[in-house]
Amino acid sequence: MLKNDLILKAARGEKVERTPVWIMRQAGRILPEYRAVRASVKGFKEMVKSPELVCEVTLQPVDILGVDAAIIFSDILVIPEAMGLDYEMIEAKGPYFPKTIQNEGDLSQLSTDNMAEKLSYVTDAIKMTKSALNDRVPLIGFAGAPWTIMAYMVEGSGSKTFSKAKKMLYSQPLLSHQLIDKITISTIHYLKAQIEAGADIVQVFDSWAGVLSHDLYATFALPAIQKICNAITEVPVIIFAKDAHYMLPDFANTKASVIGMDWTMDIKTARQIYGNNKTLQGNADPCLLYADKDTIRRETIKMLEAFGPQRHIANLGHGVYPDISADNVKCYIDTIKEFNFKN
Amino acid sequence: MLKNDLILKAARGEKVERTPVWIMRQAGRILPEYRAVRASVKGFKEMVKSPELVCEVTLQPVDILGVDAAIIFSDILVIPEAMGLDYEMIEAKGPYFPKTIQNEGDLSQLSTDNMAEKLSYVTDAIKMTKSALNDRVPLIGFAGAPWTIMAYMVEGSGSKTFSKAKKMLYSQPLLSHQLIDKITISTIHYLKAQIEAGADIVQVFDSWAGVLSHDLYATFALPAIQKICNAITEVPVIIFAKDAHYMLPDFANTKASVIGMDWTMDIKTARQIYGNNKTLQGNADPCLLYADKDTIRRETIKMLEAFGPQRHIANLGHGVYPDISADNVKCYIDTIKEFNFKN
Repeated sequence: MLKNDLILKAARGEKVERTPVWIMRQAGRILPEYRAVRASVKGFKEMVKSPELVCEVTLQPVDILGVDAAIIFSDILVIPEAMGLDYEMIEAKGPYFPKTIQNEGDLSQLSTDNMAEKLSYVTDAIKMTKSALNDRVPLIGFAGAPWTIMAYMVEGSGSKTFSKAKKMLYSQPLLSHQLIDKITISTIHYLKAQIEAGADIVQVFDSWAGVLSHDLYATFALPAIQKICNAITEVPVIIFAKDAHYMLPDFANTKASVIGMDWTMDIKTARQIYGNNKTLQGNADPCLLYADKDTIRRETIKMLEAFGPQRHIANLGHGVYPDISADNVKCYIDTIKEFNFKN
Repeated sequence: MLKNDLILKAARGEKVERTPVWIMRQAGRILPEYRAVRASVKGFKEMVKSPELVCEVTLQPVDILGVDAAIIFSDILVIPEAMGLDYEMIEAKGPYFPKTIQNEGDLSQLSTDNMAEKLSYVTDAIKMTKSALNDRVPLIGFAGAPWTIMAYMVEGSGSKTFSKAKKMLYSQPLLSHQLIDKITISTIHYLKAQIEAGADIVQVFDSWAGVLSHDLYATFALPAIQKICNAITEVPVIIFAKDAHYMLPDFANTKASVIGMDWTMDIKTARQIYGNNKTLQGNADPCLLYADKDTIRRETIKMLEAFGPQRHIANLGHGVYPDISADNVKCYIDTIKEFNFKN
């Protein structure tokens, strides 16, 4: 039995005594303790593949920041790698795929088999972390959304526009559907393995949703999201489609329990769309945490009041920026944990 | 008297016999004729400062693509330079400011005086272009929106998050207001000089609107937009705030004639917000132009029908990408010019 299951209760729409909070990228460069672990290994991927180190950095924000959930430290790009498409994580630049997917021949070489075995370094880390957490807070598992994974596999790296990947959607729609389908199957296997290993809730990150249009998202990205939500019945699913304000109404037609919001999305509009059917997650501007503490407190309380006391999991509207002081992150978290809606 | 004033008529809400069209970045790298001119000079800024070359490349898309307006070839960062903050345009990387604005001392060194004289190379180019156009189509003038200009002046270069500039909004709101005010004054002088030189309509580009939240935009960016719209009474004003879907309702309270839309924004929602009070501009996904011609035609017609026959200026939802074929751009333009709403 979890000692603190506020996030799970909020995700299921059950009444909570206060708003729970976790922070995207909470296990990461904002913490000196993380940077020390990171400095002890050669590469980022080496760290992701070490269950001991993953366990260590996953626990850090629970101990240091007092968040209401841990999220397993990993990378969304473990999926393409497990499917047979290797990548390198280049320091200060981001991911780079020496080979990309451009045609049916490339696609045919991708495998959806044995995801759980190939990604056992993640599930091992989850088991170890669950044990070390000792039921203090829930553990969040995660994966990239199929469109975002496809975007990297076709583009070969990060991009402002992901125009190569979008070009494929327009010029090779069948190939695009086939690629997304393969990624979706792999992702479902992977998420199920995470849940079996102990993940209490899972988040699907559609980090590059914002470059699509409503039509492209509805045609290519949404069906994959729906398949994942239909397949994952064991735990609540959080969908976070960054910058996809235009899809909020459509997400009502998914079985996701929680919809993640970035800071450009309007809280009142989202409540009107979902009523009491979905929990909302988010959505302070990460840059707010550069401000002085009075400003952080004032704006955080404004956000809490806009969401109201129920069906809200507090978070930022995107991952915390690495140069933000842990002290200011803690101020944000403490403001949320200490706020009393009765006042 | 202009021979083709469709864009001006549409901007003013007057009836047009067909939807007019121009393309953001139409004078640029998509045209081999532009690349030839560009190759003949050392740097981008050298080109911007030569009225003869500006005139030549501004006319190219009118002659080659058949657009319904020319837009003066220039750069939004001529304003910081005229205010005293120099920048370099680094090939394949973008703008770089050796010195940035961080405090009151930096601010005090910025001047708002003699904008028209300092930017006479732009107004000279406008005069030359107006004469060469020989009243075939209107000439669009432009400037960056004050928030976007501030973002570059504080950040010092392009950025995915513009977190340094946003940090200033949160931590130094007074300094931010003062900086935006100075930019706004300079921009109004500059736009008035462009109009006096012959610009028939002006567009204000808020390229980095999308990194802000509703509250930040309403506090810092919108008042500047309103001041510009109030000051420019001579010609219609187009506001294009990329990714600022969250500001569409607020733009109803400006005197802008035209609201630019990116491809993530919903046409029906925008029509509901503005009714018959604003003309809409946009909004095809630039990546559509990577598709085959049948797809381009089909999606373009879908867009035209969504906007309807009046109060629409067709464009893309952002600048055309430099690697898109001019032939496909022409297919987009021709589809718009040939479409008949009576069918």
